[in-house]
Amino acid sequence: MTLKQIIKEIEPADQEVTRRAREHTSRLVMPLRALGELHVIAERICGIRRTLEPSVKNKAVLVMAGDHGVTAKGVSAYPQEVTGEMVRTFVRGGAGINVLARQAAVRVLVVDTGIIADVSDLTAEISAGATLLQGEDLLIVRKIAKGTRDFTIGPAMTREQAERSVMAGYELAADLFEQGVDLLGTGDMGIGNTSPSSAIGAAVTGHPVERMTGRGTGIDNKGFARKCEVIQKGIDINEPDPKDALDVLSKVGGFEIGGIAGAILAAARFKRPVVVDGLISTAGALLAYVMCPAVADYMFAGHRSVEQGHQLMLEHMGLRPILDLGMRLGEGTGATLAMHIIEAGVRVFREVLTFEQAGVSKG
Amino acid sequence: MTLKQIIKEIEPADQEVTRRAREHTSRLVMPLRALGELHVIAERICGIRRTLEPSVKNKAVLVMAGDHGVTAKGVSAYPQEVTGEMVRTFVRGGAGINVLARQAAVRVLVVDTGIIADVSDLTAEISAGATLLQGEDLLIVRKIAKGTRDFTIGPAMTREQAERSVMAGYELAADLFEQGVDLLGTGDMGIGNTSPSSAIGAAVTGHPVERMTGRGTGIDNKGFARKCEVIQKGIDINEPDPKDALDVLSKVGGFEIGGIAGAILAAARFKRPVVVDGLISTAGALLAYVMCPAVADYMFAGHRSVEQGHQLMLEHMGLRPILDLGMRLGEGTGATLAMHIIEAGVRVFREVLTFEQAGVSKG
Repeated sequence: MTLKQIIKEIEPADQEVTRRAREHTSRLVMPLRALGELHVIAERICGIRRTLEPSVKNKAVLVMAGDHGVTAKGVSAYPQEVTGEMVRTFVRGGAGINVLARQAAVRVLVVDTGIIADVSDLTAEISAGATLLQGEDLLIVRKIAKGTRDFTIGPAMTREQAERSVMAGYELAADLFEQGVDLLGTGDMGIGNTSPSSAIGAAVTGHPVERMTGRGTGIDNKGFARKCEVIQKGIDINEPDPKDALDVLSKVGGFEIGGIAGAILAAARFKRPVVVDGLISTAGALLAYVMCPAVADYMFAGHRSVEQGHQLMLEHMGLRPILDLGMRLGEGTGATLAMHIIEAGVRVFREVLTFEQAGVSKG
Repeated sequence: MTLKQIIKEIEPADQEVTRRAREHTSRLVMPLRALGELHVIAERICGIRRTLEPSVKNKAVLVMAGDHGVTAKGVSAYPQEVTGEMVRTFVRGGAGINVLARQAAVRVLVVDTGIIADVSDLTAEISAGATLLQGEDLLIVRKIAKGTRDFTIGPAMTREQAERSVMAGYELAADLFEQGVDLLGTGDMGIGNTSPSSAIGAAVTGHPVERMTGRGTGIDNKGFARKCEVIQKGIDINEPDPKDALDVLSKVGGFEIGGIAGAILAAARFKRPVVVDGLISTAGALLAYVMCPAVADYMFAGHRSVEQGHQLMLEHMGLRPILDLGMRLGEGTGATLAMHIIEAGVRVFREVLTFEQAGVSKG
């Protein structure tokens, strides 16, 4: 299947099912819509899944990892080798995402979309016959290249690499949906990747770079000024076309961001809800949205990141974050934590009695 | 034990343990404090429990129910018999709180602190020997009276009844803590109980009634104006003393609100975290706070209610809500839903590897 065919097959969520879901909510034994966003979440999932009995039991998060040539310009507080070191930590189960995923019964799948480090020793330990949903946290290698190129000098990647990164994410997510995943989260790992994300945000939404850029893992004022300059230069010399998502991705993006965009296209194509994490995941979501605005029907914004550009991206797509806890880690942590709330919404919808069933007087 | 003795034995949280917890957080394999509020929650719980290995596995929510004489003044969109009908629904496991509690593995205990309906047939079904933490959702009868009196005519209850309601809540929560509960939530049920809650909020914080009052279960503009008048009248004719919590409770409160205040005193006395729900629970929390400001160290605000007075009450005690999902149901739903986030904070604190353990380079 080509990217063009995938996009053509995406349909909006079913508004008629959402409407019937709202009717059911109005019969639940509580004041009208008294659980606020929990109702909205459940009704949206009904419209996404085309059923009034949706399930969100089988959950997974794809943590896409990639390295970035632009780190050479000193945009991050951490050295580049941390990307590979963190991938090893994910596979060991010791990072933030692993802990939150265990709590929420969410499967973690780590994807090397293009990191510099060689982590093939880790995949060798994973038995060849295992499906994506068996065993422990899995590492999947779909390396497009050993990191992107520095986008202040020229495009971060070729257009062909950009398309391959999107297709890699699409195919992995499609596999998960075919294996029965009914709630997918997106996550990221990549030292320096707030810079391409802010660049994508600025290019697509038209907001100035200063408003789309934040402190990432923790740079100072001087570092922030330099980071803004670097991003602006990347946009100025590459002139990404905001109407052409692959052009934006190839010029100022990253392999993991392309992978996330592909996973989101898969969710829309397979009619499944997808929970988008913070700045980097939302940059991927923005690219999928440029390709096909109907994907927004399938997205939930897990949380509002501390990164200031994140909120502007969400507003561009009409999304309202579920959580607002001052988080800025990435890895899919915000998406995974929000899954408790999404599951709560679905459970309330399906399990709370109606006034009639409970024999309670109406107001 | 008398109320005076209980208050005397309450100590603030241990700031030195909290400080050591912050040191541990700074070693976790992520950018400094990148999970925001999750860290703050875990560190506070360390200071509350006086340990760097806190547990929040054993969870319960006390849903305090009571009826209100002031409903005679037309302050609610629902008829008074709904209080008893909802208590039956709780015991059947069919309400919002039951569903959210099942998801979060939280035990629901429903307490009749003073409802009009006779629900003794429900308690008869509960075997005499069962402890509070065995079996299904339990109903406990601690009826102070069959509803309060209309506070626009005189005090809602006697001072002796007020003290008894607080002690009933204290003793039930104390039992739970002695049985090993390490995270308690508070909840409420009582048609008309946003009126006494707003009255308590106005009396204690000094904010005008119009700012402390909301739409409750869903009244219109005319109903809202009447509700404000009713609350103002209750304050004017009874003149509650804002420095004397039992005076405020007896004059414009409710039995379930007193019970909630008692449960919060127990949490502080037993050094356990307590998650406070929305407007009604926070009115109870405010009374406990007037008796002993150190109780705020033990409280978490589960969510920000749609009820406008709620935020003002939280600010008065220096509390920041964990969730903000447009909820206004009560029953303990906001407290219970927030327990996922609290547990996430504790798990991150205890399970994420340090930079050293993970072998990851520091920034």
